[in-house]
Amino acid sequence: MDIAFRQQEKNQQDWNLGTVTDQLRISREVTHKIRHQGHIRELPSRAALEQILDGLRSVLFPTHYGRPSLTDESIDYFVGNTLNTSLNLLAEQVRRALLFVGEQGDSSEAGLSERATQITRDFAAQLPSVRGVLVSDLQAAFQGDPAASSIAEVLLCYPGTIAIIYYRLAHALYQLGAPLLARVISEIAHSSTGIDIHPGAQIGPSFFIDHGTGVVIGETAIIGQRVRLYQAVTLGAKRFPADENGSLIKGNPRHPILEDDVVIYAGATILGRITIGRGSTIGGNVWLTQSVPPESNISQAQTQNRNIL
Amino acid sequence: MDIAFRQQEKNQQDWNLGTVTDQLRISREVTHKIRHQGHIRELPSRAALEQILDGLRSVLFPTHYGRPSLTDESIDYFVGNTLNTSLNLLAEQVRRALLFVGEQGDSSEAGLSERATQITRDFAAQLPSVRGVLVSDLQAAFQGDPAASSIAEVLLCYPGTIAIIYYRLAHALYQLGAPLLARVISEIAHSSTGIDIHPGAQIGPSFFIDHGTGVVIGETAIIGQRVRLYQAVTLGAKRFPADENGSLIKGNPRHPILEDDVVIYAGATILGRITIGRGSTIGGNVWLTQSVPPESNISQAQTQNRNIL
Amino acid sequence: MDIAFRQQEKNQQDWNLGTVTDQLRISREVTHKIRHQGHIRELPSRAALEQILDGLRSVLFPTHYGRPSLTDESIDYFVGNTLNTSLNLLAEQVRRALLFVGEQGDSSEAGLSERATQITRDFAAQLPSVRGVLVSDLQAAFQGDPAASSIAEVLLCYPGTIAIIYYRLAHALYQLGAPLLARVISEIAHSSTGIDIHPGAQIGPSFFIDHGTGVVIGETAIIGQRVRLYQAVTLGAKRFPADENGSLIKGNPRHPILEDDVVIYAGATILGRITIGRGSTIGGNVWLTQSVPPESNISQAQTQNRNIL
Amino acid sequence: MDIAFRQQEKNQQDWNLGTVTDQLRISREVTHKIRHQGHIRELPSRAALEQILDGLRSVLFPTHYGRPSLTDESIDYFVGNTLNTSLNLLAEQVRRALLFVGEQGDSSEAGLSERATQITRDFAAQLPSVRGVLVSDLQAAFQGDPAASSIAEVLLCYPGTIAIIYYRLAHALYQLGAPLLARVISEIAHSSTGIDIHPGAQIGPSFFIDHGTGVVIGETAIIGQRVRLYQAVTLGAKRFPADENGSLIKGNPRHPILEDDVVIYAGATILGRITIGRGSTIGGNVWLTQSVPPESNISQAQTQNRNIL
Amino acid sequence: MDIAFRQQEKNQQDWNLGTVTDQLRISREVTHKIRHQGHIRELPSRAALEQILDGLRSVLFPTHYGRPSLTDESIDYFVGNTLNTSLNLLAEQVRRALLFVGEQGDSSEAGLSERATQITRDFAAQLPSVRGVLVSDLQAAFQGDPAASSIAEVLLCYPGTIAIIYYRLAHALYQLGAPLLARVISEIAHSSTGIDIHPGAQIGPSFFIDHGTGVVIGETAIIGQRVRLYQAVTLGAKRFPADENGSLIKGNPRHPILEDDVVIYAGATILGRITIGRGSTIGGNVWLTQSVPPESNISQAQTQNRNIL
Amino acid sequence: MDIAFRQQEKNQQDWNLGTVTDQLRISREVTHKIRHQGHIRELPSRAALEQILDGLRSVLFPTHYGRPSLTDESIDYFVGNTLNTSLNLLAEQVRRALLFVGEQGDSSEAGLSERATQITRDFAAQLPSVRGVLVSDLQAAFQGDPAASSIAEVLLCYPGTIAIIYYRLAHALYQLGAPLLARVISEIAHSSTGIDIHPGAQIGPSFFIDHGTGVVIGETAIIGQRVRLYQAVTLGAKRFPADENGSLIKGNPRHPILEDDVVIYAGATILGRITIGRGSTIGGNVWLTQSVPPESNISQAQTQNRNIL
Repeated sequence: MDIAFRQQEKNQQDWNLGTVTDQLRISREVTHKIRHQGHIRELPSRAALEQILDGLRSVLFPTHYGRPSLTDESIDYFVGNTLNTSLNLLAEQVRRALLFVGEQGDSSEAGLSERATQITRDFAAQLPSVRGVLVSDLQAAFQGDPAASSIAEVLLCYPGTIAIIYYRLAHALYQLGAPLLARVISEIAHSSTGIDIHPGAQIGPSFFIDHGTGVVIGETAIIGQRVRLYQAVTLGAKRFPADENGSLIKGNPRHPILEDDVVIYAGATILGRITIGRGSTIGGNVWLTQSVPPESNISQAQTQNRNIL
Repeated sequence: MDIAFRQQEKNQQDWNLGTVTDQLRISREVTHKIRHQGHIRELPSRAALEQILDGLRSVLFPTHYGRPSLTDESIDYFVGNTLNTSLNLLAEQVRRALLFVGEQGDSSEAGLSERATQITRDFAAQLPSVRGVLVSDLQAAFQGDPAASSIAEVLLCYPGTIAIIYYRLAHALYQLGAPLLARVISEIAHSSTGIDIHPGAQIGPSFFIDHGTGVVIGETAIIGQRVRLYQAVTLGAKRFPADENGSLIKGNPRHPILEDDVVIYAGATILGRITIGRGSTIGGNVWLTQSVPPESNISQAQTQNRNIL
Repeated sequence: MDIAFRQQEKNQQDWNLGTVTDQLRISREVTHKIRHQGHIRELPSRAALEQILDGLRSVLFPTHYGRPSLTDESIDYFVGNTLNTSLNLLAEQVRRALLFVGEQGDSSEAGLSERATQITRDFAAQLPSVRGVLVSDLQAAFQGDPAASSIAEVLLCYPGTIAIIYYRLAHALYQLGAPLLARVISEIAHSSTGIDIHPGAQIGPSFFIDHGTGVVIGETAIIGQRVRLYQAVTLGAKRFPADENGSLIKGNPRHPILEDDVVIYAGATILGRITIGRGSTIGGNVWLTQSVPPESNISQAQTQNRNIL
Repeated sequence: MDIAFRQQEKNQQDWNLGTVTDQLRISREVTHKIRHQGHIRELPSRAALEQILDGLRSVLFPTHYGRPSLTDESIDYFVGNTLNTSLNLLAEQVRRALLFVGEQGDSSEAGLSERATQITRDFAAQLPSVRGVLVSDLQAAFQGDPAASSIAEVLLCYPGTIAIIYYRLAHALYQLGAPLLARVISEIAHSSTGIDIHPGAQIGPSFFIDHGTGVVIGETAIIGQRVRLYQAVTLGAKRFPADENGSLIKGNPRHPILEDDVVIYAGATILGRITIGRGSTIGGNVWLTQSVPPESNISQAQTQNRNIL
Repeated sequence: MDIAFRQQEKNQQDWNLGTVTDQLRISREVTHKIRHQGHIRELPSRAALEQILDGLRSVLFPTHYGRPSLTDESIDYFVGNTLNTSLNLLAEQVRRALLFVGEQGDSSEAGLSERATQITRDFAAQLPSVRGVLVSDLQAAFQGDPAASSIAEVLLCYPGTIAIIYYRLAHALYQLGAPLLARVISEIAHSSTGIDIHPGAQIGPSFFIDHGTGVVIGETAIIGQRVRLYQAVTLGAKRFPADENGSLIKGNPRHPILEDDVVIYAGATILGRITIGRGSTIGGNVWLTQSVPPESNISQAQTQNRNIL
Repeated sequence: MDIAFRQQEKNQQDWNLGTVTDQLRISREVTHKIRHQGHIRELPSRAALEQILDGLRSVLFPTHYGRPSLTDESIDYFVGNTLNTSLNLLAEQVRRALLFVGEQGDSSEAGLSERATQITRDFAAQLPSVRGVLVSDLQAAFQGDPAASSIAEVLLCYPGTIAIIYYRLAHALYQLGAPLLARVISEIAHSSTGIDIHPGAQIGPSFFIDHGTGVVIGETAIIGQRVRLYQAVTLGAKRFPADENGSLIKGNPRHPILEDDVVIYAGATILGRITIGRGSTIGGNVWLTQSVPPESNISQAQTQNRNIL
């Protein structure tokens, strides 16, 4: 940090801190009508989760995301140690996230900690099988992109790789009962890659997203094996039914089902609980709100050439 | 950092630094024809602004973006202290940014500092009302997305939340006379969320952007209340008229007006100074360059199914 | 960091580390069938490359990306020193990347280092001319966007600026024989800007991308002078021919050619080895898979207004 | 960090990690005969305490140890906020330290936390009066050293200032029942200043140590008001009686008593439970193991000049 | 940072922040009777000075304290750049320190900055000659200690080296009119090495302190060429005369004069304005308050052996 | 960092960088008469060694210096992983240090690396036995100080503990042929504790230094078992014989031998190659240059009381 001269005339630099601070407190009191039993709930920490994800990523693929100097004799010490620190951190974040799950009002402090520990332990037990599925995803990327020169390039240079790793970790937590945490993880991936996969979505093995910026996969989407997506593909909801009070009904199936071996090119928008049949190909920029049978090939009509002037 | 062995044969590692440095200086001298009175103007620091935004964000929503252990007795100390450090930093950035506003050539050093202080103080005074509008935005997100489970999730996991918070802060600075600073802030938000809102745009309360990657909102766009946008929506200019010298005319109204209660789905492109009437819905991927009356429902024609092979 | 109380009941916090670590090792052994001569190859470090890019960026444009307090007497010391540290770091990353280039199996340790040093020295020698082309890009941005108020704004606030700087540096490394490194750099730019330019693409001077989120430019694309792109434009491949074994054929020309003075608006998708003739304008959201002659104006048919309900 | 080339021949770099790790575990098992109920007690963190002390120091003297830009309107926000973060951190360290106090075997987790919270709250309540005594110490330094030009110099440049501030904070914790924590604090001061004051010592107001390196003040020493010490003064124990088992008897009074207005010059060694009467002056390098009456002046005999050769 | 579980029962963790903060403010108001024209003076920053000293040290001896990878072509860029950043930082610290020099009450803001700039520029101009004297000190160390194996060892492993480098820099600032800054630097050296040299002392070339812990050299001491000191040597004042008001008279000569080629062994205490004649040797632990002629050899009488029991 | 306003008037802030940099280069060229084969040797890094020592310390005593949350299942992963990173770092530092050992002129790059690797591996193999001796030292501290309440206190709060741990590690490296590295380590300990033990000294088990500030133990000192020292004890050389050229003779035995069970109290100075017989006690401030038989009790004569005024 390079600091040369600072003006000294501090008497100018009053910000009316008292007034602003008071008004902000009043603003908070107006909006926080419901207090959580007199104290503030700790939220999960995005910074902590980023550290956890870095750790888990290097546990799963230590030769690519771990320290560069790992050797055969040192790699297991690295994996075990990083796993331990990551899980310790995760357990605390799970505990905080449990405070935001619906019926936790009756949970004692000890009960919450115990559940967080159990979820974390179950999550750890799933890591080897998560790794297995991720290996199928990496191979799908390598085989699916003619520009990919090595698995190393797939791991280092493909945003889809980060997106699918973080999705599979988030999905495991989502299923184990930590949905808020899973959502924070999916948003970390989204921010870094431009790929927005809701952790509730179900995605089969050998999944590949190329380029990926702008991809959106909704909460209730179901995706089979060997599916390939390109950038800016949306698997979204078409409409949001409301209940008799006008509130949106939450949680019902409203996103597409993609069967095995489907390919969807850049910019296609697939909306609603429709089914894209096995082996179908959906062209770029296609707008699709109806199911299509297996082996369909859908493409946008060629834009007509027109001289505007 | 894990450093094992380094090669010692430094004699190989000459980079012709002298030559390259000289050529780069010559390149600079060629391009910098106009010098600013013999010395280099300090630019606003993006890193400083990121720190300022972190601070202001936690001042506005301390229970979600502040320290996790805040209590009723400590929260005002945190808010006041963070406000103070953030505003001190901001005042310096405003001062630097003023160097880049048009007619500042005649401004004395003291005059610039005084204006920077005044702008910062005015900005601080607006924070409580900015917070009020942001609360309406958060509620719009919670009510507008069936996947949202809590306000906490909206604050932690929605890129649109960061985009709108940073937009509203940037817009305040834009209006107070610090447009370059406002643009840096909007680019910080863009880089983090994929949502690109020009700080000159005018956006009403209860605004919600879902997913958001690829959204672009232009400098002269005007958006009413309770508007909702999805990813990859463009509110852009259609054409850029040039003056008699062939230079683009800057600053004239050229982006759309969205009236209250408009919804625009993913990938729609709305261009030019047109008006989308109150309560209209624009479907995904729609390409629109003409005004539409209130309560319109515009959608793209369904792509025809065609078996390509 | 604010740490209050931690639970002490550590006996709950066993994660079955031994079991999970063992299973992960088995999973690695299954997937890593091919070992690289008994030890692990070091991969290029993304963090190191980010530091290198920060350094090179400030070497090219020290008054905008360097320290704020640079003066006429200090600027060359800053440039020379930053150049030296950046190139030292780069040489090591180049060496690592060379391990992943095809025929390196016969390369000795000393040979690799020598090649890395030579590539780095050649790269350094190109920096002044790279700067020259970048200046043309900056001027194109300033002249091409009516919202741009100064070159400073273009350097600080336009994601396209980072994208083109990093592309031109990556392209130089790609041509000098460090393609993996070039790809990591392009992915760093992609992650930060949403703009995905393969370092193999060839792009002429005075190139400008506005907004940019979602732009994809493929490996074999060729772009002339004074070309302008908007967000979400894809210059992609249409199909991926496979060889007799079913493997994708890698490296053949498969992306578009854009001649001089072409403009492509937001969301257009241009696929395959087609040529967009000089001076053509392609409208937003256009889907184009055939060549067009010079001075063409292609636009999407206006979506018909239809009241859905 | 500047990293150029690293040798690749990793196959040489096996360290027999397995063997060494196993032998270290066996060594631990031999020495840790007594296990603490099957799990490892967390120790207080020296790094956390250093952060706490930085915080408390700036709470006590915000204009000297706080942020440089504090103003009348911001200072209380700074003090309150820093106090809160420091006390939160301290409460956790107190809790850990309580695990090492004798009869804690029967303490429940909740009981420990409650005691830690109570000790921390009591400690906080003493801070204003601690500050009052420290002000008398600062004035004694300013008045006692002809080289002191301002109170600012006393706060910034005198190691004795840090030593007395940390001693008074440590002594308060020692009396409140956190002796291990108090000892870590005294060792932090010792490491930084060369002045080793046991937190159990009792020291009156207006105390001044000049230069200070090598000063040692033992656990049961008692020091009156307006006492002044120079570097390398020892207030130590003369002998350590053992009980019938040969173990040293711990805790009995064994260090000197210095009455008010005593001055002890550099290098003097005062040993045993003796009393230095009010107003006495002890000269440099004096070796003293017997009480002296008030107003005594003790000095070492002048070394005789002797030409050795 | 490894954080597992935290207790949630925050309602216990109120610290009475309001009360303590109020009492601390009252305590400040009592002690700060004299206010400095309504605002708080910024103090020099010890952290900034540590950074400055690191920089200046590497400017003076770049091959030992600079980056390890410096080459003939890069070393001047490193030196020039580090010099620039260090001097920029120093100028600000000098400006702050000037606020504490006696008659600065009438100084305008601009006048202070100008003086700070001038002092810094003069200081920079002295660096080459300071380096010349330091080289004589390093050679004296290498020649004076039979355990020294190389100049590199003297630079890396001798606390006396840091002490003399920092002293010579501090002394230059002291003479240029920044005594408070000089004192902070001397205390940084003291804290790191245990050697306490007042920046007002005058020390000739080829000066060597071995081991050094506990050495004290007073403000008005004068030391000739080729002098050697060992650990725990005090060159102090004998008594402090007071004026008619009882205040200590500040600034008068009160510390010893050591002529050329004097050697003083460990633990010797030399007090008062006495002269140790050229070529004299003072033995360990000697207590000396009278001048001695040239070539004297003074030693402590051998302690008699006495069986205590 | 809190930065408010900076003065802009940079035209004042020229430091004559060119002149000063040139003069410093000339000064370097004058003093560096002997060049090391045209390039600069890399020196060992004190910062790297501090990191290595932190690592090794936590490898030896993981429950006290390691992460606070270690469990039975995680501790070996932590130890193995930390050992690996520390040894990798150490090997590089050993390699650098070998450049400074006398006859390395003929060593090839590969030869140096191989020797560094071998020294590091041998060092690692000694760690378990080093730990065994250190445990005897810790027990000696606990038993030798009536103020010590637990082994935890000895590990956390006694500077003598750090001094002996670092000495034993440095001594191992000294004996394996890395004396410069050993000296840097001993100076790190000296700077932190005020205790200066030359790594060449030989020290038996169950060694305890209390308080410790100012202790100096010379290169050829030999210390038996169960020896106890207090602060400011010097075990030094009496005189330094020169050869016929006037250069000091390096390396000959010149420091004291302390037999088993010797105790030396604060401030005693023991000089020359003398022997303190088994079981002897040397009192505080004693000056001793002659051998004493076993079981001697030596003390300083009591200072006579004399009223100075």
